[in-house]
Amino acid sequence: MFTVYGMADSGNCYKVKLALEQLKLPYQWVEVNTTKGETRSEEFLACNPNGQVPTLELEDGSFLPESGAILGYLAEGTPLLPAERLERARVLQWMFFEQYSHEPCIAVARAIQRYQPPDSPRRAELPRLQERGNKALAVMEQHLKKEPFFAAGRYTIADIALYAYTHCAADGGFDLAGYPAVSAWLARVKAQPRHVPLG
Amino acid sequence: MFTVYGMADSGNCYKVKLALEQLKLPYQWVEVNTTKGETRSEEFLACNPNGQVPTLELEDGSFLPESGAILGYLAEGTPLLPAERLERARVLQWMFFEQYSHEPCIAVARAIQRYQPPDSPRRAELPRLQERGNKALAVMEQHLKKEPFFAAGRYTIADIALYAYTHCAADGGFDLAGYPAVSAWLARVKAQPRHVPLG
Repeated sequence: MFTVYGMADSGNCYKVKLALEQLKLPYQWVEVNTTKGETRSEEFLACNPNGQVPTLELEDGSFLPESGAILGYLAEGTPLLPAERLERARVLQWMFFEQYSHEPCIAVARAIQRYQPPDSPRRAELPRLQERGNKALAVMEQHLKKEPFFAAGRYTIADIALYAYTHCAADGGFDLAGYPAVSAWLARVKAQPRHVPLG
Repeated sequence: MFTVYGMADSGNCYKVKLALEQLKLPYQWVEVNTTKGETRSEEFLACNPNGQVPTLELEDGSFLPESGAILGYLAEGTPLLPAERLERARVLQWMFFEQYSHEPCIAVARAIQRYQPPDSPRRAELPRLQERGNKALAVMEQHLKKEPFFAAGRYTIADIALYAYTHCAADGGFDLAGYPAVSAWLARVKAQPRHVPLG
């Protein structure tokens, strides 16, 4: 059985939960609260020296961090990760897009709004995060006007990766009303078999 | 033949060049200067709506952005990308680490030092980038004290991805003297067959 070290409210951890549920893989969940410094403990750093959740404990007792790597590991050999070379690369393209151009704006804006006090100096970052996050949403909108999913014409781990923080982008102050193709895609993802909500 | 749209001084573009050279794949290079806004032109955005280099043009005329996805595509079926499931996941683990925890600190510090004027307000970001970049280097050091390379016990695209901005980290004000295992690994990477320098 897999063990997920994760925080229930984290989109990055939700990606792993959603994949495990949809692949019908047994797992246990160990809640790790990053806002209380639990990823900085000596015990946790022994599992993941980079001090981040999610971290997956495999059946052999080794640890695999990075949500994108965990999704790739879990989905290997399943319909969620195509075998064909260019389709695989397209899945990776959107997963790297998510981690580089999307999550650092949309997830960070959400974290500031949810976990920082109203007078936090970090709120000064919000206008820049809004601008960059909307740019990422516009890139998604342009793609989803032409395609039902991000890669291979079907639901893959690229969709799981991008759904996690897009579906709750309003928490970070983003208005999805201006992105109808993104909104329609969110509904398609939510309608997939064995979908579970964040949290 | 592949066409790389890239900037010669960019580490992200250098990753693609290094992989193409080491895999002996024919390519042409189209220089795109991001500091002159050339990734924001209508023509370039038609190739990559996210406006970033590197972007690889495939033999069928389609475009593949994201250095990590390009590396995965080029290395598929070669010794640079293992076939075994957990080894593949370890490669991805370090490539996502690079794009999320390393490049946004070490490459961005370098870009500010190299391309921003001495009185740029962006220089205020440098202390925070130094702190986070040194944390990433410490995570690498801890791994490389025990392992010769990042994944699968051998040279892979994870090493290419991490070499690109680590070997020139001094450009961003980072001192690698405190990271002897990282320095020894840099020498091992540089000694690989068909290695080419940045630029």
